Parts: sequence; structure tokens; C-alpha cells
Amino acid sequence: MMVGTKIRVHKDMPKLKNPVFVEGLPGVGNVGRIAAGYLAEQLEAKEFAELFSPHFLPFVLLHQSSAVHVLKNEFYYWKAKKKSQRDLVILIGDSQSVDPIGHYEIVETVLDFLEKLGVKEIITIAGLNVGKLERKPKVIGAVSEREIVKKYKNYGIDFQAGSKVGTIVGASGLFLGLGRYRGMKGLCLLGETSGFPIIPDPRSAEVVLKALTKILNIKIDMSKLQDKVKEMENFMKKIEKVQQRAIKQLLVQQMRKPKAEKEDLKYIG
Amino acid sequence: MMVGTKIRVHKDMPKLKNPVFVEGLPGVGNVGRIAAGYLAEQLEAKEFAELFSPHFLPFVLLHQSSAVHVLKNEFYYWKAKKKSQRDLVILIGDSQSVDPIGHYEIVETVLDFLEKLGVKEIITIAGLNVGKLERKPKVIGAVSEREIVKKYKNYGIDFQAGSKVGTIVGASGLFLGLGRYRGMKGLCLLGETSGFPIIPDPRSAEVVLKALTKILNIKIDMSKLQDKVKEMENFMKKIEKVQQRAIKQLLVQQMRKPKAEKEDLKYIG
Amino acid sequence: MMVGTKIRVHKDMPKLKNPVFVEGLPGVGNVGRIAAGYLAEQLEAKEFAELFSPHFLPFVLLHQSSAVHVLKNEFYYWKAKKKSQRDLVILIGDSQSVDPIGHYEIVETVLDFLEKLGVKEIITIAGLNVGKLERKPKVIGAVSEREIVKKYKNYGIDFQAGSKVGTIVGASGLFLGLGRYRGMKGLCLLGETSGFPIIPDPRSAEVVLKALTKILNIKIDMSKLQDKVKEMENFMKKIEKVQQRAIKQLLVQQMRKPKAEKEDLKYIG
Amino acid sequence: MMVGTKIRVHKDMPKLKNPVFVEGLPGVGNVGRIAAGYLAEQLEAKEFAELFSPHFLPFVLLHQSSAVHVLKNEFYYWKAKKKSQRDLVILIGDSQSVDPIGHYEIVETVLDFLEKLGVKEIITIAGLNVGKLERKPKVIGAVSEREIVKKYKNYGIDFQAGSKVGTIVGASGLFLGLGRYRGMKGLCLLGETSGFPIIPDPRSAEVVLKALTKILNIKIDMSKLQDKVKEMENFMKKIEKVQQRAIKQLLVQQMRKPKAEKEDLKYIG
Repeated sequence: MMVGTKIRVHKDMPKLKNPVFVEGLPGVGNVGRIAAGYLAEQLEAKEFAELFSPHFLPFVLLHQSSAVHVLKNEFYYWKAKKKSQRDLVILIGDSQSVDPIGHYEIVETVLDFLEKLGVKEIITIAGLNVGKLERKPKVIGAVSEREIVKKYKNYGIDFQAGSKVGTIVGASGLFLGLGRYRGMKGLCLLGETSGFPIIPDPRSAEVVLKALTKILNIKIDMSKLQDKVKEMENFMKKIEKVQQRAIKQLLVQQMRKPKAEKEDLKYIG
Repeated sequence: MMVGTKIRVHKDMPKLKNPVFVEGLPGVGNVGRIAAGYLAEQLEAKEFAELFSPHFLPFVLLHQSSAVHVLKNEFYYWKAKKKSQRDLVILIGDSQSVDPIGHYEIVETVLDFLEKLGVKEIITIAGLNVGKLERKPKVIGAVSEREIVKKYKNYGIDFQAGSKVGTIVGASGLFLGLGRYRGMKGLCLLGETSGFPIIPDPRSAEVVLKALTKILNIKIDMSKLQDKVKEMENFMKKIEKVQQRAIKQLLVQQMRKPKAEKEDLKYIG
Repeated sequence: MMVGTKIRVHKDMPKLKNPVFVEGLPGVGNVGRIAAGYLAEQLEAKEFAELFSPHFLPFVLLHQSSAVHVLKNEFYYWKAKKKSQRDLVILIGDSQSVDPIGHYEIVETVLDFLEKLGVKEIITIAGLNVGKLERKPKVIGAVSEREIVKKYKNYGIDFQAGSKVGTIVGASGLFLGLGRYRGMKGLCLLGETSGFPIIPDPRSAEVVLKALTKILNIKIDMSKLQDKVKEMENFMKKIEKVQQRAIKQLLVQQMRKPKAEKEDLKYIG
Repeated sequence: MMVGTKIRVHKDMPKLKNPVFVEGLPGVGNVGRIAAGYLAEQLEAKEFAELFSPHFLPFVLLHQSSAVHVLKNEFYYWKAKKKSQRDLVILIGDSQSVDPIGHYEIVETVLDFLEKLGVKEIITIAGLNVGKLERKPKVIGAVSEREIVKKYKNYGIDFQAGSKVGTIVGASGLFLGLGRYRGMKGLCLLGETSGFPIIPDPRSAEVVLKALTKILNIKIDMSKLQDKVKEMENFMKKIEKVQQRAIKQLLVQQMRKPKAEKEDLKYIG
């Protein structure tokens, strides 16, 4: 048996009306993860599906309750409360692929799933490493097609700086680049951050969230973001360390240098 | 042709009644391998299937008889002798996956197989690196779901320390994390050990075995464990060295630096 | 879901008459990419299909317009204007596979596609690292079958030096080596270059283009090559840097050494 | 499209009577490759099939004729001339898998093919690194099942030393270890050699060939082995160097460290 990435729906697929997909997975400054996670929490969005992948590291996380969970991504949905709003599908999670091929596999699997949900618009969130702490981080925009820029020009997003960025690595970029071939229009919101991946950057997440909620015509209470980020920071730092320790351990297991010895090799059942 | 992990049943599938699955594969201190192997031996459990995987290293082990065997895992079963006992399926073996993806492939393949055997409960055994030799190693517990803790609270298992562990790498963790989505309830017994993977830790294996046999309501003679471990230690040390030598060899083959030379390249059939 | 390389046809497959396939992907000195790209541009060849692969790095490139595109290869066709000419299928693109297996997957996927287009002749273009800047770079030829040499003996191609080369790495070689088993006759034109992959070598591209257009009985204006190469050089240097930065980032993400710490791991939704 | 290892039969499958399979692929001292290649040549065995794999490095070799060939393995057959002889299927080639998984894929693909040819007996040939040049290299034997030792006890093969070897890495071991589960009886002949993979060891190949031809009841002229090995040595040294250069090149391409620069990224079609 060979295994690939798969999505497990808890019960039924939600019935959504022309939903917007919002993605925020771990990455530079954890900007996307913080922003999308806080949005899902404040909206009391409902988790309805999980994604598992052999391209996540092969370990489980141990909670304080002694229960474990395998690394995964989660899908939430939220239904619009007003006519001026849109239904949402939000993707957050523990990890992105740890190898290059896995990014493609995961993004294509999600795009298949989004097609079933009727998604035609995508907003991805990521951090942009500018090498230093910005007092007033900007939100830089990238789009799947040039015409889309117009649609988003009134939200304080900088569409000039994009070409200086050069590249968007991982899921946030691929959703735009590959979603386009399925007729999905995509926007990527890049929050400027100092670029230390281990340190969540709440300030960057906040400016991105402001632009995002403006676009989505949603109001959320921002006052708890700082607190939430502190909690999350603890968790994020640790998942990162745990992940590094795990990788180190895997490497050590494979690299430990044996002394050249020749001894009998007895086998016992 | 592309090949994946596969399980080969010797003859027929055993008919088991609501069996418990016990896993003990090589890992930190070889705690799981020692404990599960000794249990299978003392119970005179019967081997009924083998698992092969392209994610094990590509070599065979040479026995003293001059016969070889390819790296594999083996399934044993044991039928309950009393009403208070449960049928068992035990998994032991030479190796775990040597790459991250393989862990997922192997665990999912085994879980498919366990479903066919009617398994709904899983107990995995692993070592927990505490960085120093413990005189009295503890058994630390992790579970697939929070409620399961109650069930196992009377066996001297420490369910407080789990959250400090943070993570369980490899098969022992994944069986819990992934088995859960198939309705399997899982317990992982982690024996504290000094964390030198090359050195089997019989003391840690012993405390885990005591907890395990108590849970399973089974009595086994512990007096031969020390001897068995010595034999096994020999074997384990060597398989480890052989494995390292093999990896080194593979790396050397690929990394040797050629002098930049340009010579005719004649081809002879 | 597992994903492989795929080709997406924009609208309809072009109807071509016994077309010749010309391949020029990035590689040593970007000789192939420059030559084939310039040829497609001068001929005003039409793009009709794109190739995507999980074996390209997982990022998108950001254009000045703020639009992104995922790394890809593109197919162009051109219809012969005279009886002495042949229809062409031209393959250019951003990248080759970044892992060994991917080269086979991409080349086999393209060969399947070429069979549908009726291709029976292949000309691939690559740079040949001679370690120093040649004033008058030569064009060295390699063929899929010995008899083909005769056919191309009057175009100033050096068929003696080939055996000193020893090997052709990547797509340009595999198209010949694997295409042969599909009855396709192949020629590889290797332009001598100094071998700095980051620096496009227009002089080498030019001599190869001259041989190629002579073979194809096509006349193109060479006067803009120098300018085009300067533009392309900018782009190529940057895609290379971006690619290196991305790889570095992926490596750093995976390799960063955590301090060995043990702290509580709280999980927040 | 994803691609796997495949075998291409030139015309028809040969009709063989209970054939013995002899394998000799490149490896330590190239003992297997030399012995099996010389055997095929002296017997004037006929090539009838080729094996291609994405687990060989992605390049072609350039012959003096300017023709290229992609790395491959070749199958030869030979029909018995006497009642005391057996039909043979011989496998030689340019390369073994360059990654661990590929060894399994290639060996399983070949075993499927051998089943179709009616093969029930396997003899593999490999070099055994003893770390120094032996004046009189021994032939050490390993078997797929303990009982087979008896069958081969009269050919001067050392079946005592096997357990000191510990392991057989690559195809020669896997054919025995995996073939066994298809009811194939296997013998591996290991010729002692100094263990420099780059240097073909004709003396070791010769002693192995002597044992092999005795087993197969075949007489071949050994006088040309030395010459053939010299020719082959040239080729082998170079394919090795070429291979190393190619790997180095692939690594360099991926590892080159870019200066951290931020510049405009203009895209030109």
C-alpha cells in the first residue's frame, strides 16, 4: 500500500453559498496561522474536516490531558450573517509539508475539496520576511491574475512592493498559482515581519487581519489577539522545538557513525 | 512498477475474539522491541504474518546458518487462556521506516490489517529518552483520547508527565494518532530510559512489561529477561552497526568526490 | 491523493504535420533556454499547453503586475511557411526537476504527449561546460542512434568531441535516450560554455541557434538576441537567486537547531 | 503521470526450460558485473529485454559513435547445450538504484518478470569488502534457506564465513530475501575483494566465475578475462566518475549559496 494526503469530513459537507476560502498555515512569523486562527475563533467558525498527510513529520503531539493528536490541518466553515458578507471556509493547522513534493500534493488535494465546496475565491495569508522589525508593518498583496488588483485596491494593500518580493514559498503561493487553473481568483496577503519563523508576529498578523476583515465586511473584537498570541506563542515555539528535536533525532538515528567492527551476528527470534 | 508496503499472511488469518494489539518495534533504548519480543516468546505466541516495506533499508541480514532474511516486521497472535484475558496480536520486527513518509505508509497498512482482525484496542510500547540512567524508571502513559486515562489509572502509569514529553516519534505515536480515526482506542506505554538508542535498556523494558502484563491480566516469568536481553543486545548492537555501515556505504557511494578528469569513454558490451 | 506531472492544453491540440520537437530548458549557461526561447519569440510561435510538476520547487514567482505564476514549462507550436520547412513543437520553461526521479517522470510525460502530436524527431539544446570562456564556442552533437550522424554532418556540428563529454545530465539527454524506445530520432546540440550556470551565455546560444536554424531551414533576425539575453539575464539571475533563497529557507526551516528544552506544551485550538 | 521501473522486451519472450537466473550488477569491486558480463559474452548469450528505472541517475552516456544510451540493465538468455546443463537468464547493467526505495522497486519488478520466465533458482554475484587485497580471494556463500547449503557444498564455497559478513546490501541480497517468498531458491556468491568500488577486481571475479561455471556445468575460456577487465575497467572507472560528477553537479545546483540580495524581478516571456 502507498499512502497519500487525505481529507476526512467529520459528518456532512456544509452547504455553503459561493464561499471564500481563507488559508493561514504555519510559516514565516506564523502570520497566517495567527490571523486565520484568531478569525476562526472570533467568528466561532465550525470545524468540519481534517487533512492528514505523509508529508507531515511522523509524530504525534501530547496534550496536557495525556491525549495525543497526529499533525494535521483543519477546515472550518462560517455562514454569512448579512447580505454584505460571504460564507467562509477557513484552513488552519499544525504544519505544512516538510518536503517539496508534499506541498503540491497537499495543495492539489485541498483544491479538489474546495471545488466540491463551490469555492471560486481564495485569500491566503503569509508573513513576508523584511529582515527587521517594522513599527508599522505593511500588507503587501499578490494576485492570481493581474485584473484582480483593481478589486482590492481600496484596502490599504501595497500592490507595488510585490514584484520586489520575487517569490512566495509554500502553500500560500501554490494556492494562487494552481487554483488559477481551476478558475479560482486568488489574493495573497503578506504581512511584513522580521522573519524569525520561531517567533509569532502578532503585530503583522493584526494588520493583515484588519485588511482581511475589511475585505470580508466582518467585524471582530481585536482586543484579545495579543493574549491569544501569547498563548499561541508558547505552543508554537514548542511545536517548532519539538519538530526540530524530532528531525534532529531522525537525522542522528541515520547518521550515527558506527565503529568499523566485525563481530558475529547471532539472530534471536 | 511502483512498490509499497505489504503484509504477507503465512496461511490463514487467525480467528480472534476482540483482540488487543500490542506493538513493540525498535526505537529509543529498544524498550518496545525487548518488551513485546519477550512477551511473545514467553506466551509462545504464533507468528502468522510478515510485513515488508521499501522504507526499510535495502539489505538482507545473514544468519549463522548462511541463510539470509530481508528486514521485516512480524505479526504474532495469542489466544486468551482465561475469561479475564484477551486475545492478542503482537507486532515486533527488525526495523522502522528509515524515511518520514514510510512511517505513515507502514502504520496505515498495519491499521488496515488490524481492522480485518477485529482490533479495537491498541497498546504501543516505546522508550522515553530522559537523558540519564534512572534507577527506578517510570512508565509514562499517553492515550488516543482523554477518557481512556480513567481505564488505565490503576496500573502505576504516570499520566501527568505526558504533557512534558511533548511528542512521540514514529510508529508508537502514529498508531494512536491515526488508529483513533478508525475507532481504535490507544494507549502508549513509555519507559524512561537513558536514551542511547544503540543500548537496549532491559530495566526500562521490565517496568513497562510489568504494567502491560497487569493490564492484560497475564503472568509471565520475568527471570529470563536479563539473559534474553543480553542475547538480544548482541544482535541489536550489530543490526544497528550493520545498518549504520550500510547507510555510510550508500552515502559514500553517492558522495565520493571524483577528481575532475576528462577521458575517453569507451563502452564495452 | 498522490500527484504527478501533468500537461494542461489551453484549448485544442494543434494539428501538425510530422513536427520536429525542439527542447530548451534551463541548464548549464542557460544555453538551451535562451536559444529555444529566442526561436519561439522570433517565429511568433503560439503557446498551446503548459506542464506542471511536483518536482519543481514549491513556490510561485511574482511579476511586476503583482500576479504570480507557478513554476512551469510551456509548449509552443509553429507551422511551416515553406515546403522546405517543418512544423515545430518548442518546449521552454522556468525549471527542470529538482530531484533525480522527477527528470524521468517529466520526460516520460512529455514523450507521451509528443506521441499524440505525431513527433518522430527530437532536437534538444544544452550547454556544455568546458570550464573556460571560449571565444568561438563549438557546437557538439550527440545522437540517439549512430546512423543519425550522417543526416546532420553538413551543419558544422562536431560529432568527434561527443565521446569526450561522457554524459548529458537532465532532460536534454533523457529525451534522446528514452525517446529512442518510442521510435523517435534524436539530436542533442551542446553549445560550449564556461559553465557558470548562473550566467546565461548568449554567445554559446547564438552558435547553437545558427546550427539549429540551418537544420530547420528557418531564417530569424539574430540582432535582438544580445538585448533579449540581457533582459533574460536579469530574470534568470533572479529566478536562480530566488530559487537558492527558497531552498536555503527550506533547509534552514528543517535544520535549525533547537536548544534542548523541556517545557509544558499547551495546545490552543 | 508518475513513473516506475519497467522492463521492455525486444521481441518475444524466450521459451526457456526451468532456467537459472544469474545476476551481476555493479557493486563492490564490480565483481558481479565483471563475472556475469564475461559469462554472457563467452556463452554468446542473447539480449532479449532491458530494464529502465527512475531510480537510476537521470543522464545518458555518450559513446564514441556520438550515440547515447540511458542507464539501464539488460537481460540475456542462453539455452543449455547438454543434458547436464540448465537454461540461463543473465542480468547485467550500468547501475543499481541510487536511492534505498528503488532497490525494492527494481528487484520486485525483476522478480515478477522472472516468474513469467519460469525461474525457480537464483544465483547472485557480489563483491565482499574484506578491506585488503587478498592473494587468494575466497568465495563466500549465502543462501535464501538453510537447506540449500547442502546442494552447494562441493564447489569450494565457504559457508562458515557468511555469518561474519552480517549483511548483503543492494540487489544481490534482496533477490534472495524477497525471491524466497515466491518459492525461488537462492544462492549468493560473494567474492572477497579489497573493497574499493571504483576498481574492478578481476581476481575476485575469476574465483567466483570458477565456482559458478562449476555449479552450472559450463566451460568457458578464462584467458580473455584479464583483457576484458582492462577494457571494462576503463569504462567502469569513467562511468563511476561521470556519475560522481553528475551527482556533484546536481548537488551544486541545489546548494549554491546566493548572496542575500533584493532586486526587481522582471519577467520576460
